[in-house]
Amino acid sequence: MGNCLVAQSGGPTSVINATVAGVVKANQLNPIYETVYGGLHGIEGILQERFVDLTNMTEEENRILRQTPSSALGSCRYKLKRDNIADFEKLFEILKKYNITTMFYTGGNDSMDTVLALSEYAEKHGITGHQFVGCPKTVDNDLVVTDHCPGYGSAAKFIANTTLQTWLDVNVYTREEVFVLETMGRDAGWLAASACLSGKVDVLVLPEVVFDKELFLEQVRKCVAEKNKCYVVVSEGARFADGTYIAAAESKGDGFGHAVLGGAGHAVKEMILSSGAAKRVKVQDLSTAQRCHATDQSLTDVEESFRLGMSAHMRSQDPTFTGMMVGLKRLDTPKYEVEFVAVPAGEVANNVKNVPAEWILPNYAGVTQEALDYMRPLVEGQPVIEYENGLPKYTTPFQYR
Amino acid sequence: MGNCLVAQSGGPTSVINATVAGVVKANQLNPIYETVYGGLHGIEGILQERFVDLTNMTEEENRILRQTPSSALGSCRYKLKRDNIADFEKLFEILKKYNITTMFYTGGNDSMDTVLALSEYAEKHGITGHQFVGCPKTVDNDLVVTDHCPGYGSAAKFIANTTLQTWLDVNVYTREEVFVLETMGRDAGWLAASACLSGKVDVLVLPEVVFDKELFLEQVRKCVAEKNKCYVVVSEGARFADGTYIAAAESKGDGFGHAVLGGAGHAVKEMILSSGAAKRVKVQDLSTAQRCHATDQSLTDVEESFRLGMSAHMRSQDPTFTGMMVGLKRLDTPKYEVEFVAVPAGEVANNVKNVPAEWILPNYAGVTQEALDYMRPLVEGQPVIEYENGLPKYTTPFQYR
Repeated sequence: MGNCLVAQSGGPTSVINATVAGVVKANQLNPIYETVYGGLHGIEGILQERFVDLTNMTEEENRILRQTPSSALGSCRYKLKRDNIADFEKLFEILKKYNITTMFYTGGNDSMDTVLALSEYAEKHGITGHQFVGCPKTVDNDLVVTDHCPGYGSAAKFIANTTLQTWLDVNVYTREEVFVLETMGRDAGWLAASACLSGKVDVLVLPEVVFDKELFLEQVRKCVAEKNKCYVVVSEGARFADGTYIAAAESKGDGFGHAVLGGAGHAVKEMILSSGAAKRVKVQDLSTAQRCHATDQSLTDVEESFRLGMSAHMRSQDPTFTGMMVGLKRLDTPKYEVEFVAVPAGEVANNVKNVPAEWILPNYAGVTQEALDYMRPLVEGQPVIEYENGLPKYTTPFQYR
Repeated sequence: MGNCLVAQSGGPTSVINATVAGVVKANQLNPIYETVYGGLHGIEGILQERFVDLTNMTEEENRILRQTPSSALGSCRYKLKRDNIADFEKLFEILKKYNITTMFYTGGNDSMDTVLALSEYAEKHGITGHQFVGCPKTVDNDLVVTDHCPGYGSAAKFIANTTLQTWLDVNVYTREEVFVLETMGRDAGWLAASACLSGKVDVLVLPEVVFDKELFLEQVRKCVAEKNKCYVVVSEGARFADGTYIAAAESKGDGFGHAVLGGAGHAVKEMILSSGAAKRVKVQDLSTAQRCHATDQSLTDVEESFRLGMSAHMRSQDPTFTGMMVGLKRLDTPKYEVEFVAVPAGEVANNVKNVPAEWILPNYAGVTQEALDYMRPLVEGQPVIEYENGLPKYTTPFQYR
């Protein structure tokens, strides 16, 4: 009987650990692997043989792991390059040493490329007995083929909740005011678009639409004229026709030289103030909190992430199951339902799924009903979260135990 | 039978509406007032006779009001100046016109000063039949006499949760990194200190302690050297010996001239980077969300806010009860318990309660166990929050109905 290895990569999410919990739980229900290893810090730690034994995790530990945000096994930005043969050789040596027959890797584009590269390398070199299975996760929701990505629903829920709450806040005063909410999303606007679930967004700026400063300011001006307020949501990835991020452009010549100081939100604030479109602008940059504020987890998201881990484990019983990613397919049912499907990792790697053009309303007016119908089920449901001394109980990251 | 008026002032909180709900509920249990008016936008709206009738709010509406953040009646920054006789005359005329015998006013320092000013004016001019009762609320927790302020517990819980969550996030990578969390608190450090409930804060900068840049950077350097990471919490009110806010000082000469662009968090980031204390710094400015992220409400906080409104209503049966604020007194019991007490508004107005010096550890090392024991019960408990379509159900602000 062989062992399996599960590791996490890329930016963390509020539910990424649920996939690990799913793999562990599936193996307890059907112990096809003797040991379930957790690899610390993704490929980077695996190359250093930094493993922990997750096999006999208790139900209590499993439950807490599911509600813990961020990557409990640690993550890495280390990219396995195809021409770095030494890395590949070392990795397969380690897999052999620990008798690891299946490696589950959770992550986004880059991680699916790693899954692809490893399975291709094995095939090319006639190495048998190792399977590589990808589990998608990314708050950005930008993977193709899968209907959506675990992690997105919870981030979207936090963003929509915060939009609703800050909209209420900005509306307490009678004074003229613009509120700017900045979300993540360097290439795709899914996170910014999720703010529209609140029904309170007046102006939405996505990376999918070339930023036209004058048109944008005109919308803000109109909105302020009409109701004295304007709620703007801007994606960090918003950019001009020449591809420059609006954040970078606005911070040019500021003497600082740090484009990161003021992000897209602050850039937009500068534009509004200096153009006189409004006299008062407040900015909220959701920053790191949007991908880890797990007290706002979506139940749908946690459960799908957990089941996806179970599905990946179960499918790996088939020895030909390698170089694949387990994705989500939305069924054509009146009530939202998904099934788990297997897709070649190569179809996912290095592609980006954008918000479809036909879902984006003109003049920065938000997204269509179809887009809202797509997002709504993903934020539904609240898990019962366990607390201790007033704060949520979280797993101590394995790398710090 | 007379009527009463309840209005909200100052910056909103996650539980300020619960006090209004408490006044309304108390009057349903014991209808000593014929009508419970809600005054829109505080004094500003009252002077324009912008009233809504809250008397017969349903239990469902009451429940949703308690979970709704921000000021459902709207707020104002309008300060009733003692020499503006016209305002006072107009206000008493309106109270007479609507047969309002008691006015409940929720707010912070300024609002308690309004309560004081109105009751003094009535006494001085021999105007009888009107009572003015203050209900404290402020996320800043900076009112004297009362043990703590409704609104603080929920903000503290959101901050502590976010600290825990972002600490997990920043620890997923092996790289050297400093995380800086900026909280509100222009004069008092209660909000910044609440981050310490997470047990994850390495360096804490409060407005109560003069900011010594070199000493601060030394602590960051030490921490990074020890564990490759450093979690810094800084209050927006942190300032140098000469009283300059650190945010303002660092943005001098940047060509922008906007001290607000980068707050204290960004100022600290600049210091760390330019001194070489660390190579990578991430900033999260909690901004508006910290005072309205009601999906992280503390049950203790909501219940106290609600009961405080009830207590204020009940006490107003005594016709001599005016110019008073209803505060909270912590009992000397093993398990946390409070009683509601009446204190003269004059003792509260225009004073600030700081984090006591003896609760602050030297070298920016955080706060003492005593401070944690003070804060802990205030964040305890999670209310059952009602959701609809995946998002929390909130009251439509009365001014927009």
